[in-house]
Amino acid sequence: MPDPRFFMKSSARSLAEIALLAGAEPGPGADLDCRLEDVAPLDVATANDLSFLDNVKYKDQFLTTKAGACFVSASVADLAPKGLNLLISKHPYKSYALAAQYFYPEPVPESDISPQAHVAADAQIGEGCRIEAGAVIMSGAKIGAQSWIEAGAVIGCNVEIGTHCRIGPTSSVSHALIGDHTRLYPGVRIGQDGFGFAIDPAGHVKVPQLGRVIIGDHVEIGANSCIDRGAGPDTVIGHGTWIDNLVQIGHNAKIGQGCIIVAQVGIAGSTVLEDFVAMGGQSAVAGHLKIGAGARIGAQSGVMKDIAPGQEYLGTPAVPIKQFMRQVALLGKMVKKNT
Amino acid sequence: MPDPRFFMKSSARSLAEIALLAGAEPGPGADLDCRLEDVAPLDVATANDLSFLDNVKYKDQFLTTKAGACFVSASVADLAPKGLNLLISKHPYKSYALAAQYFYPEPVPESDISPQAHVAADAQIGEGCRIEAGAVIMSGAKIGAQSWIEAGAVIGCNVEIGTHCRIGPTSSVSHALIGDHTRLYPGVRIGQDGFGFAIDPAGHVKVPQLGRVIIGDHVEIGANSCIDRGAGPDTVIGHGTWIDNLVQIGHNAKIGQGCIIVAQVGIAGSTVLEDFVAMGGQSAVAGHLKIGAGARIGAQSGVMKDIAPGQEYLGTPAVPIKQFMRQVALLGKMVKKNT
Amino acid sequence: MPDPRFFMKSSARSLAEIALLAGAEPGPGADLDCRLEDVAPLDVATANDLSFLDNVKYKDQFLTTKAGACFVSASVADLAPKGLNLLISKHPYKSYALAAQYFYPEPVPESDISPQAHVAADAQIGEGCRIEAGAVIMSGAKIGAQSWIEAGAVIGCNVEIGTHCRIGPTSSVSHALIGDHTRLYPGVRIGQDGFGFAIDPAGHVKVPQLGRVIIGDHVEIGANSCIDRGAGPDTVIGHGTWIDNLVQIGHNAKIGQGCIIVAQVGIAGSTVLEDFVAMGGQSAVAGHLKIGAGARIGAQSGVMKDIAPGQEYLGTPAVPIKQFMRQVALLGKMVKKNT
Repeated sequence: MPDPRFFMKSSARSLAEIALLAGAEPGPGADLDCRLEDVAPLDVATANDLSFLDNVKYKDQFLTTKAGACFVSASVADLAPKGLNLLISKHPYKSYALAAQYFYPEPVPESDISPQAHVAADAQIGEGCRIEAGAVIMSGAKIGAQSWIEAGAVIGCNVEIGTHCRIGPTSSVSHALIGDHTRLYPGVRIGQDGFGFAIDPAGHVKVPQLGRVIIGDHVEIGANSCIDRGAGPDTVIGHGTWIDNLVQIGHNAKIGQGCIIVAQVGIAGSTVLEDFVAMGGQSAVAGHLKIGAGARIGAQSGVMKDIAPGQEYLGTPAVPIKQFMRQVALLGKMVKKNT
Repeated sequence: MPDPRFFMKSSARSLAEIALLAGAEPGPGADLDCRLEDVAPLDVATANDLSFLDNVKYKDQFLTTKAGACFVSASVADLAPKGLNLLISKHPYKSYALAAQYFYPEPVPESDISPQAHVAADAQIGEGCRIEAGAVIMSGAKIGAQSWIEAGAVIGCNVEIGTHCRIGPTSSVSHALIGDHTRLYPGVRIGQDGFGFAIDPAGHVKVPQLGRVIIGDHVEIGANSCIDRGAGPDTVIGHGTWIDNLVQIGHNAKIGQGCIIVAQVGIAGSTVLEDFVAMGGQSAVAGHLKIGAGARIGAQSGVMKDIAPGQEYLGTPAVPIKQFMRQVALLGKMVKKNT
Repeated sequence: MPDPRFFMKSSARSLAEIALLAGAEPGPGADLDCRLEDVAPLDVATANDLSFLDNVKYKDQFLTTKAGACFVSASVADLAPKGLNLLISKHPYKSYALAAQYFYPEPVPESDISPQAHVAADAQIGEGCRIEAGAVIMSGAKIGAQSWIEAGAVIGCNVEIGTHCRIGPTSSVSHALIGDHTRLYPGVRIGQDGFGFAIDPAGHVKVPQLGRVIIGDHVEIGANSCIDRGAGPDTVIGHGTWIDNLVQIGHNAKIGQGCIIVAQVGIAGSTVLEDFVAMGGQSAVAGHLKIGAGARIGAQSGVMKDIAPGQEYLGTPAVPIKQFMRQVALLGKMVKKNT
């Protein structure tokens, strides 16, 4: 059970209600009135808990679970232990997410401008905002309604932040326009100058960075990640893109919608990721490249050329995943033969 | 000599006293009354300085050092220059560390709650704590005795921090229970939501992250490192583990005791490191893996499979270190032959 | 046109004036009195805009640009579209940088010590400094004239910062001496203890870190980068070195002048980079190595041996770039043959 010091739970719901909110169908014989009080993993769930099976790796736990109900795909319903209420879903993990969101909704910030926050007289703060102690909102900044500026965050001059945003503790934003329902985790850095200069033995000459960072709606940017502003064009992050912790995005990069950027990724300047690109942890893309929609780049890969839509690449330099696997297999075989 | 603006030195001690506190034995003929005033590297040490030889790379410096005394292992004692007082130790570097700790003890925070800190009325602050300007302690948080919350740090609601901890400037902690004598360096991020969502073209669906971060005693976490809270289970960091700067630890990861995690490492979600695992800089472990006790993973490696206890791995994908060396050698040979 | 909410433009200048300030020569037939009002990329520039051609990749844009004037090298002047005023430069990108600096000069901080900053009574603040809300300046710190300490930055006891510096929001500095005209971007961590301890199963023993961080003049350090202080010797960053975001520099490292360190690089302890070394993104150098002046290390490389001056290395373990290219080609050929 989640620690009640940190998480506030909603009230119990019947299986029928859960099915409805989670986009699932009660399985054959399921008890529609069964009360579900909480969510829990298969192996620790009890009769009042709702669980899910998404990854076949956990099938054994499914066979013996004591959960009260369980989201599953139709294909594994037959394996269910006797008496387990099933909730059949095309996307069991998504259904679980929706149910968990019901039981544990995102905290809604209590509207309050802390007297210990530092808000410029001409900043515009929307209705219902929460501005915490130590936060600094500079001249001309606009914060949309219901947004939450956490402790010690610094919002620069004339920055615009949409509604229902959450800006994490001690993060900083400048030269940026941010959409609605977007969240910056703690320590995120948005809008600082990109890494631009003319190389000169007498002292590199700074190139003024004259663009902005434009961030869409429903974007999440993980802790201590950095997004530099453009050099002339803007740096852009599309709607619904999820960025993990410690990610670096260089000036002028354009990241499409719905992309997934795992921790410690680096995206060099002026590179374009089309929609729904996924990049594994610690991978990187060189500058001025184009990564096609839906392409997938494996962890630690180093991409040095454009990638066509839908392709899966791996390795440094990154190659199609099948070729990478062959390289690894071949190298292994040769080493064996030579020793 | 360390800069007195930044370091405060304890008073001189005799060689006999030093031997005692550092777990070393005076060598044959050593002057037990010799006064030692400071520590210094072999090449710059003078007659009042204490030094050490641990790495054979520095043997030449040992042969000509002007140090007043030197920690060495018994095996090299014979090489000592005439007149150098030896302190024989099984672990010369550890003995040096203990002596250096005597001369330069960790600063003890002056007990003080700054009037410029923002402490919630119902936060519990132990005796002897130091809470600096700009720090924010939220409702229900508990800070153990003698702990030191540095400037601008943000401690979230109901977080518990043990005694003798030090929480670095502008770091942030939420959803976490932290043991005693643990230190977060500047800019550390603890307890934010892990990277969890159901992929959906219509907008990825957030999976509430319902676990905590549990950190043991005597843990060190380097600057700007990030540890996400669990998705359901907790993320756990065992006693005495040392984590360097800019490290990423994903949700549900379990890190054992005494592990050593060098800078810029990434540990993906739900992975387990047993006790005393060492990971070199920029290496990474994929999710849901188990790394056995005492295993060693080389710098920049990418681990894609479980590793048995005590094994040494290197490369991407990581292989046993001997195999990696053979791959490198073989590739080098083939390139030569083909050009 | 740069967003006027974020960038303030200087007044128009004649082509003759621009040529002078940017170190360029008006091309044959150029209209010396032509008024230029702004800078812009070739493809969007209009008759009042100044542009540049530096990278041959953008030649097509040059052929059709509507810019009022353009910096080019003499070698491509013949290709210019009719009527385009040329500004001939040996270094067109540098000339552009100087012109852009004229139109968009770095913001000069308005002198002000915010009543919401926390400045120790015995800190020394030079003339014309700007200290923003939430910044913390500790006892004995010295800030040189015209320096700018941004919101929430924390300057530790006895730290010295030169003149015309800019210390980014929520960054932190301790145990450091910083030169003039140096800039730390947001979230930078300077001077925390290096990662030093004697390994011990009973609990690793901390080795006191007794050095400092010494940073030269005209240094730039990117967002969320970390530079640890020395263990005994100092960690040193030379004049005019540019460091990008999320870079890690370990204790005792010595970085020369004019180096270029791209994002997410890791430099391990006690390593020396001579002057004008360039390191690509996510590359790393192991500890105790020496990288010769002007050496270039490719992105994601892992350097495990010294590199001679002027050499170009790539790969993990890093090898001369030609050898790396041969390895990649050979491996590709073999995979083809074997499938």
